[in-house]
Amino acid sequence: MFDKLFNPKGVAIIGASQKTLSIGNVITKNLIKYEYKGGIYPINPKADEICGLKAYPSILDVPGSVDVAHMSIPAKFAPMAMDECGKKGVQFVIINSAGFKEVGPEGAALEKKTVEVAKNYGIRVFGPNCQGIINTDPEVKAYCDFTFTFPEPGYISIVAQSGGVGAVFMQNIHDLGVGMRFYASNGNACDISIPEILRYYGDDEKTRVIILYVEGFNNPKEFMDAAREVAAKKPILAMRAGRTKEGAKAAASHTGGMVGVGLSTELIFKKTGILTFQDQEEMCQSAMAFAEQPVPKGKRVGLITDTGGPAIIATDALVEAGVEIPPLSDKAVKILEEKLYPEASAHNPIDVLATGNAGHYRAALDVLMDEEHIDAVYINFVTPPFVDCESVAKEMAAVSKKRKKPIVCNYMTDKPQWTGTTAILKDGNIPLYDYAEMAAKVMAALTNYNELRSRELGEPKTFPDVDKAKAEKILQNGKDAGKKMLSAAQVYEILGCYGIPAADWRTAGDAAAAAEAAEETGFPVVLKADSEKIVHKSDEGGVALNLADAASVKAAAEEMEKKFGKEGLQFFIQKFMPGGGKETIIGAKAEPGLGHTLMFGLGGVYVELLKDVSFALTPVTPFESEEMISSIKTHKLLEGFRGDKGVDRKKLAEIIQRVSQLVTDLPGIEEMDLNPIIAYEDGAFAVDARIMI
Amino acid sequence: MFDKLFNPKGVAIIGASQKTLSIGNVITKNLIKYEYKGGIYPINPKADEICGLKAYPSILDVPGSVDVAHMSIPAKFAPMAMDECGKKGVQFVIINSAGFKEVGPEGAALEKKTVEVAKNYGIRVFGPNCQGIINTDPEVKAYCDFTFTFPEPGYISIVAQSGGVGAVFMQNIHDLGVGMRFYASNGNACDISIPEILRYYGDDEKTRVIILYVEGFNNPKEFMDAAREVAAKKPILAMRAGRTKEGAKAAASHTGGMVGVGLSTELIFKKTGILTFQDQEEMCQSAMAFAEQPVPKGKRVGLITDTGGPAIIATDALVEAGVEIPPLSDKAVKILEEKLYPEASAHNPIDVLATGNAGHYRAALDVLMDEEHIDAVYINFVTPPFVDCESVAKEMAAVSKKRKKPIVCNYMTDKPQWTGTTAILKDGNIPLYDYAEMAAKVMAALTNYNELRSRELGEPKTFPDVDKAKAEKILQNGKDAGKKMLSAAQVYEILGCYGIPAADWRTAGDAAAAAEAAEETGFPVVLKADSEKIVHKSDEGGVALNLADAASVKAAAEEMEKKFGKEGLQFFIQKFMPGGGKETIIGAKAEPGLGHTLMFGLGGVYVELLKDVSFALTPVTPFESEEMISSIKTHKLLEGFRGDKGVDRKKLAEIIQRVSQLVTDLPGIEEMDLNPIIAYEDGAFAVDARIMI
Repeated sequence: MFDKLFNPKGVAIIGASQKTLSIGNVITKNLIKYEYKGGIYPINPKADEICGLKAYPSILDVPGSVDVAHMSIPAKFAPMAMDECGKKGVQFVIINSAGFKEVGPEGAALEKKTVEVAKNYGIRVFGPNCQGIINTDPEVKAYCDFTFTFPEPGYISIVAQSGGVGAVFMQNIHDLGVGMRFYASNGNACDISIPEILRYYGDDEKTRVIILYVEGFNNPKEFMDAAREVAAKKPILAMRAGRTKEGAKAAASHTGGMVGVGLSTELIFKKTGILTFQDQEEMCQSAMAFAEQPVPKGKRVGLITDTGGPAIIATDALVEAGVEIPPLSDKAVKILEEKLYPEASAHNPIDVLATGNAGHYRAALDVLMDEEHIDAVYINFVTPPFVDCESVAKEMAAVSKKRKKPIVCNYMTDKPQWTGTTAILKDGNIPLYDYAEMAAKVMAALTNYNELRSRELGEPKTFPDVDKAKAEKILQNGKDAGKKMLSAAQVYEILGCYGIPAADWRTAGDAAAAAEAAEETGFPVVLKADSEKIVHKSDEGGVALNLADAASVKAAAEEMEKKFGKEGLQFFIQKFMPGGGKETIIGAKAEPGLGHTLMFGLGGVYVELLKDVSFALTPVTPFESEEMISSIKTHKLLEGFRGDKGVDRKKLAEIIQRVSQLVTDLPGIEEMDLNPIIAYEDGAFAVDARIMI
Repeated sequence: MFDKLFNPKGVAIIGASQKTLSIGNVITKNLIKYEYKGGIYPINPKADEICGLKAYPSILDVPGSVDVAHMSIPAKFAPMAMDECGKKGVQFVIINSAGFKEVGPEGAALEKKTVEVAKNYGIRVFGPNCQGIINTDPEVKAYCDFTFTFPEPGYISIVAQSGGVGAVFMQNIHDLGVGMRFYASNGNACDISIPEILRYYGDDEKTRVIILYVEGFNNPKEFMDAAREVAAKKPILAMRAGRTKEGAKAAASHTGGMVGVGLSTELIFKKTGILTFQDQEEMCQSAMAFAEQPVPKGKRVGLITDTGGPAIIATDALVEAGVEIPPLSDKAVKILEEKLYPEASAHNPIDVLATGNAGHYRAALDVLMDEEHIDAVYINFVTPPFVDCESVAKEMAAVSKKRKKPIVCNYMTDKPQWTGTTAILKDGNIPLYDYAEMAAKVMAALTNYNELRSRELGEPKTFPDVDKAKAEKILQNGKDAGKKMLSAAQVYEILGCYGIPAADWRTAGDAAAAAEAAEETGFPVVLKADSEKIVHKSDEGGVALNLADAASVKAAAEEMEKKFGKEGLQFFIQKFMPGGGKETIIGAKAEPGLGHTLMFGLGGVYVELLKDVSFALTPVTPFESEEMISSIKTHKLLEGFRGDKGVDRKKLAEIIQRVSQLVTDLPGIEEMDLNPIIAYEDGAFAVDARIMI
């Protein structure tokens, strides 16, 4: 698909310049410096020579074939230059110049026009307002980019919307002494998209792990399809930007709004099997481990250390990162007691002591590789000047190369002095970390990825007992009436259509009818004034709780009639639910191009003060509905706590799925809140609900 | 005090060896390699020459004066060698060898004996089982240590109990290209202690910031006194080990036990003004900023960036680290709009664009330095190959050197290429970070330190209305009776002595008396069987709640008499407190050598499930008691939430202080739980309490 983009035979730089501090000059120099194997053709009508290469007045004058052309010229010349590229038979054009969509409507029009010209010739456009691509393959060495890092060949491929962030990843992976395979940062993404690049990386055999950075999606659906497909083949590590607590904070007033800025991005990652990071360093350091080591089958880690303090720090960090440190088998302990120093620790963490030698390390490694209940190995290796560290490193490398279980190493040394030892460990593909904490986080990333990969999301369940047509009609009625917020009766009717249990309810046109309706639902009841004029019902006296008999209902209704006037006033009567249940909340919020985000949480303090909620993207599968419930911190309250009875979790999970089906069937719903749903030991009932369209 | 330890005129190595992989050999080589300015005297009866230096059979044969002698010999020879050191007039002996206290009683005896010999001669002993010291002063260059890092001179001094961790700090600070002043790792600390070393660093003018690592305290009081004194002079950054969630977890059953492993260390740090870290890298990176930049006066940060994505990441990271990013003044925006590119952002974060030049950066820096409501400056600097980065760096360095407000910089570059730019920034004392997140954490460390330093803890209040003598007598009675757990009556009497409000209570010897007592407290009441034989009162039927009249009290008491037998059975009758209050918990736990840890939290789910509690060390000042209340996540519940009434916070703070005075006066108390204390709008009452002695 993008073979000629990443493996071009010839590259032209339209706008190449002799000016050192110009993008066209930098790209030309980069191609030369990185020793690109194809033809480099600077295009500049006013120069004969640029960076020691012959320059051509037009791309049409280039003698050789050109697969990729850079454009580093004022935006207004882009369509014309594209036309020339077409005539030359160029396959891919990387527009580095800015001045397009990002500067406003005029630029957007220019961008559109440029793409149209390209389409006529079958040219694919990369950018504009972007860096470009890099292919480290020694046979190609294509540095079609104005960045400054010159990476070694390797197995990590990077795709980043923001060039600044992409450059940080590339540079830091390079600083780690790890190689890279492909780099791509496509800025405005007017044509070639990140999902397409992802797919290309997915098909590339030499790409073992993908690093992804996005700030938003033009087409979330396209992204999800590609991500799911590629994530099934190899690990994708990703970060999202724009994560701030402000999102959750501002939404304290209503639950739908709790879906924070950028949260849906994280939910997309989770749903498609992408491992999400919140820290660039952690992601780069983890990429190194993913590129070099196998993925563990579980999260039980064995430690080897040659120094006390760092082992304590490592234990803290591993436990806090969610990794388990199980005790060793008796057999393992016995072997270690025989083979290590008498003062060494033969338990997990295994302390071979500062004076531990190669044989000791090998014994510890062999034991951990053989222990069935150990999934991965963490090593603390400080290089004592009084130990033959190269021999130790050789044993580690030998075990690592068997790729039986992943190894990460907190390597505490002065690298410029311990070059031999470092080289042996690197050659053994052991990822090396300066700090115990980072090594622990990387270990956790490996185990988390294993869990993510092993999740069986399953398919969403379709409940057959729903009346979609009726619900659609009610929604349409609301829309036709120009409503933003459906009336209580409409909301509960829709819930009824989807089998979402609610406390029994009636509507009534006047006080007398309200009292009658209450007789039908049974007492006690809640009475609400149902009129669009009344915005804050409770504050304005439009709600009467816990009415015990018909007389009280009638009196309360008459009071409301007096207050709000009879015109347009309807009453909503609902059975008042008994105490002893637990308040829960389910919310939904439309995500443009995506479906809806669903939210689950416990009501009251838990959601409002502690923000203890979980989210998922529709359509929600049974697995995901259960996961939503389990992943709130206070979920134990639902299982019964301190002698309390538990609640009907199964029913809650079913309601989440029914809500998922509801909003998927009715995409016109902007927001929906079931707040609260009171959950009992044997059922759950919505007792207040809102739908915004 | 330790001048001759850190600035020795001559160093002898007892146990110097020709064997390359031996500690005595490594120390000798280190002194030579680091170009120590004094005399180096290898001591070895069997060699004439070691590492090219003349070796002496005994320290007594050394011609020059020896201030510091290393011992790297089997432990059993230490007393004899110490005697020779005394005769030679050595001032400090660093015992590198292991085989002392850490291996058991025999080693401990040897350690004691060695110190005794040293004391006779007025020798101070460093170690044993330790690394040693380093002084980077170009006039001294004392490398009395077997570590492997060769640091440049600088302003950071390190003191670490664990040599392994100390070496990590030293190496990583060196890797950051930052200098060090002193290093000390004293292992078993048989004589020279960490508090003494801290004090020495505190008095050293060239030490600007201290890095500290401890795993425990021989004498917490001595440490606290020294730490308070030194922290008042310069920043101390510290880490503690053995932090795990297991502590909090295991303590779910009773509140006193919630004080986690190592928690008291963190409380000591906080109380004495030491900035605590949980991550080695964060601490090392922060030390660089503390060594090079001033401390900000507040936490309002202005950002400058030349690239979009990293600015989003920086904003997220700063906000999440608790830093504020306020808008700029109109005046500032106007200046920036005039001086920057038209497409640049003149707001906070200020985006000078990738093409931003030196003048643009300078304008942005000047504006932020002039803004009164900006306390510190954060820069994102990616080095575009098409910009004159050295000129940009020169402006940054010039502004930094004025030391008006601290600057930290996320420096995104390939350092081996941008050597000129890097050198200019380094020379300008600008701390450089590879990642936005780390730069943000360091910025937060600077602002947190400012807050820590500005806290006015005040003095603990002594309540005059207490009856210490009576409380002591009750405790003594309990002790004399061989009790572990005081009886309810004893507990409430002690509370009474310290003015800690409790629900009205009585004791009674039989059922009839219990009913009478209940008439006195008023109904409803709680009735408890008060007998040491009954361990789990509630489970065994020894508690009757909410008894409404005398008859019910009598019946319940008779039931208990039947169940437990009359012998030794007492009744405890207490007024049952009305609903509407909030359950809170105050706990105390003795910390050997320290006083007590106090705990505060909300009762029930909040403490048991969410572990939402705060801690402080006694004696607790009014400021600290308030801080304990404010620092739980759910403290808003106490202030009134969702229409709820608030509770009497002042009273709760007073009770915390009274408990502090109580356990300080009565150090024999092992654990004390007031669980719950029910807090109302106008008061708070303990309704269940336990004291363990």
